[in-house]
Amino acid sequence: MSVTAQAAGNGATRPQRASLEDKKSMLDKVDCFIFDCDGVIWRGDSVIEGVPETLDMLRAMGKQLIFVTNNSTKSRAGYLKKFTGLGLNVEAAEIYSSSYAAAAYLESIQFAKEKKVYVVGEVGIQEELDLKGISHIGGPADGDKKVELTPGMLLEHDHDVGAVVVGFDRNINYYKIQMATLCIRENPGCLFIATNTDAVTHLTDAQEWAGNGSMVGAIKGSTKREPIVVGKPAEFMLENIATQFGLQRSQICMVGDRLDTDILFGKNGGLATILCLSGVTTEEQLLSPDNSIHPDCYMDSLAALLEAKQPVAA
Amino acid sequence: MSVTAQAAGNGATRPQRASLEDKKSMLDKVDCFIFDCDGVIWRGDSVIEGVPETLDMLRAMGKQLIFVTNNSTKSRAGYLKKFTGLGLNVEAAEIYSSSYAAAAYLESIQFAKEKKVYVVGEVGIQEELDLKGISHIGGPADGDKKVELTPGMLLEHDHDVGAVVVGFDRNINYYKIQMATLCIRENPGCLFIATNTDAVTHLTDAQEWAGNGSMVGAIKGSTKREPIVVGKPAEFMLENIATQFGLQRSQICMVGDRLDTDILFGKNGGLATILCLSGVTTEEQLLSPDNSIHPDCYMDSLAALLEAKQPVAA
Repeated sequence: MSVTAQAAGNGATRPQRASLEDKKSMLDKVDCFIFDCDGVIWRGDSVIEGVPETLDMLRAMGKQLIFVTNNSTKSRAGYLKKFTGLGLNVEAAEIYSSSYAAAAYLESIQFAKEKKVYVVGEVGIQEELDLKGISHIGGPADGDKKVELTPGMLLEHDHDVGAVVVGFDRNINYYKIQMATLCIRENPGCLFIATNTDAVTHLTDAQEWAGNGSMVGAIKGSTKREPIVVGKPAEFMLENIATQFGLQRSQICMVGDRLDTDILFGKNGGLATILCLSGVTTEEQLLSPDNSIHPDCYMDSLAALLEAKQPVAA
Repeated sequence: MSVTAQAAGNGATRPQRASLEDKKSMLDKVDCFIFDCDGVIWRGDSVIEGVPETLDMLRAMGKQLIFVTNNSTKSRAGYLKKFTGLGLNVEAAEIYSSSYAAAAYLESIQFAKEKKVYVVGEVGIQEELDLKGISHIGGPADGDKKVELTPGMLLEHDHDVGAVVVGFDRNINYYKIQMATLCIRENPGCLFIATNTDAVTHLTDAQEWAGNGSMVGAIKGSTKREPIVVGKPAEFMLENIATQFGLQRSQICMVGDRLDTDILFGKNGGLATILCLSGVTTEEQLLSPDNSIHPDCYMDSLAALLEAKQPVAA
């Protein structure tokens, strides 16, 4: 009896390594694949073997492909360079960055044209807001500003700011924190939007770097407000994708390498889910009785889908 | 029937405006008064009328006086200038700043001599650590550091850091956030200590400024750890004061102007409590059925205690 066929002690079905039939069935029912990139498409600066061919196959089958990243420092167009640099044939419209998610969210709520966004973050958010015609201030322009205190000093903030968008910002400073805080606390109805709340980010491969959880945490700490999160694992992204492509949730499959983010996100959203072992999760961790997050199926890497391309000889 | 004598709807005793007997009784049983300063001792840059005489009276009666501040940017010696500048006769040892609290906490747990503290904060924390002979790095020296990213770059952190102390820091930057994050995440047993988590602070009278809640929030966001809080309203401060002066909790009285911080803090710690109406809380707010935080008694200002100095003619 294979290990995957054993019933788990708690009565839940144990995760199944995808059989050929599982893969065919997945390709039949799913019209849109949402990919977490790091650990599924690439690892560090290398594309995972067989992935470009798998993406070509899926595209040839008419599947909608969406590449998700919580990186907000780049716009979709900016992030595209990462794909093309790795030799991957992808279009900007297939990339769903958290910078785009912030702009798409504001569009979805019909953010008032006379209002502005105060940006804590980098150029990606600004570029996506520009594409939606949404006015903004802050961002990199406030990167070198200092608060020089003199008695009775007051920092004037813009009363037309109707939303503060907080994304990863390696030039975070007290000026930006105070400006964001004033807008959220003092402008009636001002929204507090976080591109994501990831604890760590991968600025370089050499170590883990403090992520946007820090920038969002700073603004939470002074406003005592919880943000609207638009990137992974927020519900907004799924809703936005389903609406944009006219799909039911069951027609969408989340493909990721992390159980507590990617797979949980997919399952909570009612999507099909595939875990790839090409990233941070090992088969042992997946099958451990301590793990209660079970994808519909798992495979060594996305390339394992290739065998479903054509009938296999018996 | 006076408004204070009415029973509250929920059965709890309504707060009492202190009578002469209440004041005498308080002075009999209490040996140590802990004062929140802003709204009790001063308002902005002015001492509240009658307060200096009241402090003199309490001192003449042999009472221990402690002036509490969550301001960590100054040491006790540094903060003393604020008192003397206002004409108040106070000693550094009577001031309990959150910068001192951080150093006192590390002393109380016998922080290893070979370990260091990484400081996110200003000079006050450094000065208090120096007085306890505790090594430290970071602080203002890291105020202008930037993370210049190159491929494969790694920020080296000091593996001898055994505690990160986070206090208000108007020069917060990504370098400090990453350094604090690395120490907490990667040094086994490294403590995460917050001088306080106040949302706002009063850098100037002209507006409210983002407080240490921002700096602490940034480190919480990247470490997913909760800090040990040593300033108000943490239990450590009371324990430290009670031990230092050999007092029972019932011999200590918290005097403040805020219900949800000062008075709640005192009540949770088993102290006597006095609310002064000389700060942010009005009598209406105090007596509102919506307020469930009741001090033992309240008075217009600390100066109301003066009438208990000597017998009043009938």
